[in-house]
Amino acid sequence: MASSLLRNLKPHQIYASNTSVGKTIFSTLLLRAHTHFQPSKKTFYLKPVSTGPDNEADDCHISRFSPATQTKCLYQFDEAVSPHIAARLSPLSDKTIIKDVQSHLASCAAEGGTLLLETAGGVHSPTPSGSSQADLYRPLRLPTCLVADHRLGGISGTISAFESLHIRGYDLDAVCIFQDETYQNYVYLREYFEKKGVKLLAVEQPPERSSKYSEKEDAQMMETYYGNVAESGELEDLVQLFANKHEQRIERLENMSTKAHSTIWYPFTQHREVSPDTILTIDSASGDFFQAHSKSEQTEAEVLKPTFDGSASWWTQGLGHGNPELSLAAAYAAGRYGHVMFAGTIHEPALKLAQNLLANLHNPRLAKCFFSDNGSTGMEVATKMALSASCERYGWEKGEIGVLGLKGSYHGDTIGAMDCSEPSVYNERVHWYEGRGFWFDFPQVKMNKGKWVVEPPSGMEGEFGELARFESLGDVFDLETRLKSPAGQQYGEYIRTTLERLVVKEKRKFGAVIMEPVILGAGGMLFADPLFQQTLIQVVRENASLFSSNTPKPSDPNTWSGLPIVFDEVFTGLYRLGRFSAASFLQTHPDISVHAKLLTGGLVPLCTTLASDSIYNAFLGSEKRDALLHGHSYTAHPVGCHVANTSLNTMLEMDREKKWQPFKDDWQEAVTGVNESVWSMWSKDFIYHVSNFDAVESVVALGSVLAISLQDANAGYSSSAATGLQRSLIKGSSEFKIHSRVLGNVFYMMASQTSQPETLRSIEQLLLRELP
Amino acid sequence: MASSLLRNLKPHQIYASNTSVGKTIFSTLLLRAHTHFQPSKKTFYLKPVSTGPDNEADDCHISRFSPATQTKCLYQFDEAVSPHIAARLSPLSDKTIIKDVQSHLASCAAEGGTLLLETAGGVHSPTPSGSSQADLYRPLRLPTCLVADHRLGGISGTISAFESLHIRGYDLDAVCIFQDETYQNYVYLREYFEKKGVKLLAVEQPPERSSKYSEKEDAQMMETYYGNVAESGELEDLVQLFANKHEQRIERLENMSTKAHSTIWYPFTQHREVSPDTILTIDSASGDFFQAHSKSEQTEAEVLKPTFDGSASWWTQGLGHGNPELSLAAAYAAGRYGHVMFAGTIHEPALKLAQNLLANLHNPRLAKCFFSDNGSTGMEVATKMALSASCERYGWEKGEIGVLGLKGSYHGDTIGAMDCSEPSVYNERVHWYEGRGFWFDFPQVKMNKGKWVVEPPSGMEGEFGELARFESLGDVFDLETRLKSPAGQQYGEYIRTTLERLVVKEKRKFGAVIMEPVILGAGGMLFADPLFQQTLIQVVRENASLFSSNTPKPSDPNTWSGLPIVFDEVFTGLYRLGRFSAASFLQTHPDISVHAKLLTGGLVPLCTTLASDSIYNAFLGSEKRDALLHGHSYTAHPVGCHVANTSLNTMLEMDREKKWQPFKDDWQEAVTGVNESVWSMWSKDFIYHVSNFDAVESVVALGSVLAISLQDANAGYSSSAATGLQRSLIKGSSEFKIHSRVLGNVFYMMASQTSQPETLRSIEQLLLRELP
Repeated sequence: MASSLLRNLKPHQIYASNTSVGKTIFSTLLLRAHTHFQPSKKTFYLKPVSTGPDNEADDCHISRFSPATQTKCLYQFDEAVSPHIAARLSPLSDKTIIKDVQSHLASCAAEGGTLLLETAGGVHSPTPSGSSQADLYRPLRLPTCLVADHRLGGISGTISAFESLHIRGYDLDAVCIFQDETYQNYVYLREYFEKKGVKLLAVEQPPERSSKYSEKEDAQMMETYYGNVAESGELEDLVQLFANKHEQRIERLENMSTKAHSTIWYPFTQHREVSPDTILTIDSASGDFFQAHSKSEQTEAEVLKPTFDGSASWWTQGLGHGNPELSLAAAYAAGRYGHVMFAGTIHEPALKLAQNLLANLHNPRLAKCFFSDNGSTGMEVATKMALSASCERYGWEKGEIGVLGLKGSYHGDTIGAMDCSEPSVYNERVHWYEGRGFWFDFPQVKMNKGKWVVEPPSGMEGEFGELARFESLGDVFDLETRLKSPAGQQYGEYIRTTLERLVVKEKRKFGAVIMEPVILGAGGMLFADPLFQQTLIQVVRENASLFSSNTPKPSDPNTWSGLPIVFDEVFTGLYRLGRFSAASFLQTHPDISVHAKLLTGGLVPLCTTLASDSIYNAFLGSEKRDALLHGHSYTAHPVGCHVANTSLNTMLEMDREKKWQPFKDDWQEAVTGVNESVWSMWSKDFIYHVSNFDAVESVVALGSVLAISLQDANAGYSSSAATGLQRSLIKGSSEFKIHSRVLGNVFYMMASQTSQPETLRSIEQLLLRELP
Repeated sequence: MASSLLRNLKPHQIYASNTSVGKTIFSTLLLRAHTHFQPSKKTFYLKPVSTGPDNEADDCHISRFSPATQTKCLYQFDEAVSPHIAARLSPLSDKTIIKDVQSHLASCAAEGGTLLLETAGGVHSPTPSGSSQADLYRPLRLPTCLVADHRLGGISGTISAFESLHIRGYDLDAVCIFQDETYQNYVYLREYFEKKGVKLLAVEQPPERSSKYSEKEDAQMMETYYGNVAESGELEDLVQLFANKHEQRIERLENMSTKAHSTIWYPFTQHREVSPDTILTIDSASGDFFQAHSKSEQTEAEVLKPTFDGSASWWTQGLGHGNPELSLAAAYAAGRYGHVMFAGTIHEPALKLAQNLLANLHNPRLAKCFFSDNGSTGMEVATKMALSASCERYGWEKGEIGVLGLKGSYHGDTIGAMDCSEPSVYNERVHWYEGRGFWFDFPQVKMNKGKWVVEPPSGMEGEFGELARFESLGDVFDLETRLKSPAGQQYGEYIRTTLERLVVKEKRKFGAVIMEPVILGAGGMLFADPLFQQTLIQVVRENASLFSSNTPKPSDPNTWSGLPIVFDEVFTGLYRLGRFSAASFLQTHPDISVHAKLLTGGLVPLCTTLASDSIYNAFLGSEKRDALLHGHSYTAHPVGCHVANTSLNTMLEMDREKKWQPFKDDWQEAVTGVNESVWSMWSKDFIYHVSNFDAVESVVALGSVLAISLQDANAGYSSSAATGLQRSLIKGSSEFKIHSRVLGNVFYMMASQTSQPETLRSIEQLLLRELP
């Protein structure tokens, strides 16, 4: 990865809507025009991949007719066929090409000037690896110039080529085309592109090549043509336009944080600590990287720096930014439906998504899918569902009914979701917040100085026993064995006693158990002992009499018992922790399960709340008021649902194809009696090393999540122990910077499900270097 | 509009990635193969628009080589140029073409069989009107077959053509291509399309035409070619595939509501009243119409029926379903960014949207923009903002602090938003709901038996005076004159007295005024007297001493005074009522303004909460906990923001270009002293007629909203007075059905901002016929 915007290099990428529409001729015209109108500036021409005889290559043509230009071809194949055929005997990866292109851009930038990068064939012509050019070069997101097709049928091909570039996030600065008076494509296309604010340049056609003329005569005629056209006012305008676009883009990037500072009210942000210097300006993103500009970290040469998205954009990213498949999926659903109202209607993307989740969560309890817009709304829905089901079964009227949960849990920022959590820094200033429930303190899983331990909450060793050490993380998840251990017994005893005190002695009422399985995210990436979570559920389910005196245990095993169990898998589900369902770590089945964040692969907001029939049935009644009167305008919006299906299917396919096997092989953490292992994309060895740092209290890793808890006497959300590490990472390495979010004294990194191992290993190296 | 899916007609639309790639030859092959393998079934060929000499036309070729096929060309232009040039002297609208195509499809369906519709040129080749073919034919959304380009460069053009179809929501069933062993495009494309589940058919190239041969010899060679290829097993497979796809599509549509019934938990729905028969299956949508299947309204011939989206898909639609510009905008942002995290970062779409709203709301108070996902979350944000600002200024600790609002208001389904409204059927069963505030009853604007009136709430004539009659709706909005009238004085007096009672006598505390300006949506489309709303705000602002004893009126006119005023414009704003800002009807400026629904033109969820600096400053502090600790994962997601900018700019452009002038001319309701008039897309004459029906209590219309209140002794949300009308409209006319939502005894229709006048007029006719 390298910068894709260098102050001293004005690059344009020349794409064409088809072969033989004059790409090289327009490149020549543009380069000559640059030389003519800006004689003091250098010009560069880069043809990354060329096929066909060397002496007929495009860079030779440029050298001949724009002699002032420094030309370069990176890969030359002699065969006059598509690069993917030409390269079949000497494979060439996209990564290699893009790296070499970037090096070349950097070296040209050192001299300064204008560069044209000419692609081969049309926008989607195959690269040597067989991928599409438009995808290969996308991480650079160079400004583009499209050569249109002047021939019969050329209008269609040109517009489609534009759309293919546009939906990949390219910006088009100009369209070039030969004038053909019969078809007049240039007239139609000028109007079309001007409506989009894109300049169209139409020039006369070059002299026809003919056997009548000698090679020398041919060359002379071309020279005359180039001279006439390249020195015209229209070309001068285009040279100026290219220069202006470059300057304006840099100016916009450099000013954006100042403008943002005066207009944007940021989420979760104390604006006293914000200045234009602290705001990161994101030009674009691809894979796991932003191309970003930072006022404070600015260097003279590089306007943009590749910056690793270390929070997976608030835990949402799975398939990489700018993923063309997700972009196409979004556009397909937008084109087919837009949004269509969902009360009493059905459309394929919503039905498929409901079926997809129900099938792959492998939870026999879940039967119905309710849609909303984000984790917080989905948790409010879950809470309404659970409370109504309890009240309906136990005959409770409205009143003080709370939830059972874990300390440090967090379920979202709307008031109802906030009320499901205990008082904390997040909600203490929210005037309508009132924590409604009881939250258990719980033992945590950590790697501590090279050992996996389960640590009781401080001061509660009496209830939970001393710190327990485990040979492996897999052993921590061997719940069957552990359940029979003294610890398992202690957990059950403690939970039962506590519930008896709350319900019998204190006469408190509870309507649901709500928890984030395995890792409590916003609370500080707390890795809950899965045995404790499992035991809590078991105790609640097996002691229904606690909550109401004469309720028999339901005969249908899929009917909720005791209290409805709600799993907030908003963060933990859908492969974030390495498995489709985070519930599977607890070997238990919730009655209600909430999914968001990764659901759309990290593209648009969407949430699903899945529930069992025994929950659903509580809302059946003779009157509308008995129903769940909740719904958002964009409920089950087709764009979100179709993107979600595309994303889930992609991840399921990766799972089936064992794409994560190398990570699993690294961890080798089988769990006795369980099919799936526990593993992380962060390497086992690295975790071990980190845990031995003096400044590190403990470390955990699971799936794509890494969390390092730093030593701090005042740990918690208001701690600043992790900000030093954060600051040194934003400076980054020579390769890239790292953007991160911290949770008080907890520094975390979150990979996407498609992160490249080499990227993660190089982040690990950097972390080992920068850890205090 | 007509059905786009007829049981007895298997249609496929033949698109091509370029001209001269063999579209007509593949059409011939497919038609002959159909005849050969399914001799009992008829075949039809339709070339809607043809250019070039009659005797060379494609339909002649088909007649010659597939003589069993009934061919038809709707429009023939002699000139061999693009249709938009050929038709320049005899204009031909898209509407005419599509109507004629639909009639032809219907007549072919009467006979039954297979039809191929061959387009002209490439997918985006211009139609006679100059639009793109892919856009013109999109409302039909016929299954497509794409003829790929076998020539050099053809891979790129083929993929781009596919993408152009895909992002318009077309389904591609097959790709056809000639085999060319040099370029081997068919090999690459087969792999490419098979990954997408699309079958590729590659056949040998047809014999070359040559002057060596006589016309007769040529024809003989073609005949042989067709015979050989069309009778091959591969063609048989394709014939079968087309038949299967047709059957499967119908089967999916017919079964979808049953599957939905067993998996989907619908919003705001009493599932006791739902059966597969009541669920509308939406195949696709374009403009204001769904193409929908209903089990109960099914006819033998038509599987899909065009169905007017009478609730504008829960009040979200502005620019029509399947709008290609919005689809492209969504894909561009997805391709450029995906989603990028928004805490402490900035990207162009978010910045532009914030600037766009701040500039066009023309509210000097608003300075900052906070993003969330839907109206409900945006209102929670607004409430948190307002309450904190009040508590900060007045030094209140947490405790019982409520809001001031209007009876019948509704602000969303999350608990915090619910708490802003008085108890109602929506929230009475929500266990954690507690209405926190006081809600004023208020006089309503209505047209009653041909007269605009302002009606006091029943039993409150003492406070508000008797029913007031107005000559015009414009006069109702002449607030300056009315303020000085006795009614104006009465309002002020009543509000002051009430506030004094609440605050001074009852010692209640209030932290915000929250209201939906002009029309209270979910409460039943209640048209509040704008003078009452304006007066309430004025009284609160001018009587700050009511809320705290020693607070001087702020010197900066943009600083909030008394209480922060929150406008919930989620439904009413952004041209829903005919103006960019609904606040302008009240000639006042709120301190906080919330916008969603129409914000993205009706594509994806997004909400903005705009606030003044005096609100924002209340959250500045030395600690993080002082900040607004609210945020959603997809805060300011680039897809939503970019679509919103595209949508807002389109509507602003429509406004500037006076696209709604015909509606304004119909109403001619100037408001004294105010620039903007009041008007509706529903015709003035129609409103007058409706108001005179015995069954009609009253009617209102403003902007795109029409609401008819039906007589019912038990009016309100649980009334079923409007369901009869709803049922007769879903049966619709011969042209189309009408899908509607009702709010108890209130029947409403909502147009989009781009609805066609003739559509609305024909709905009005139907309503006049069906009104009881």
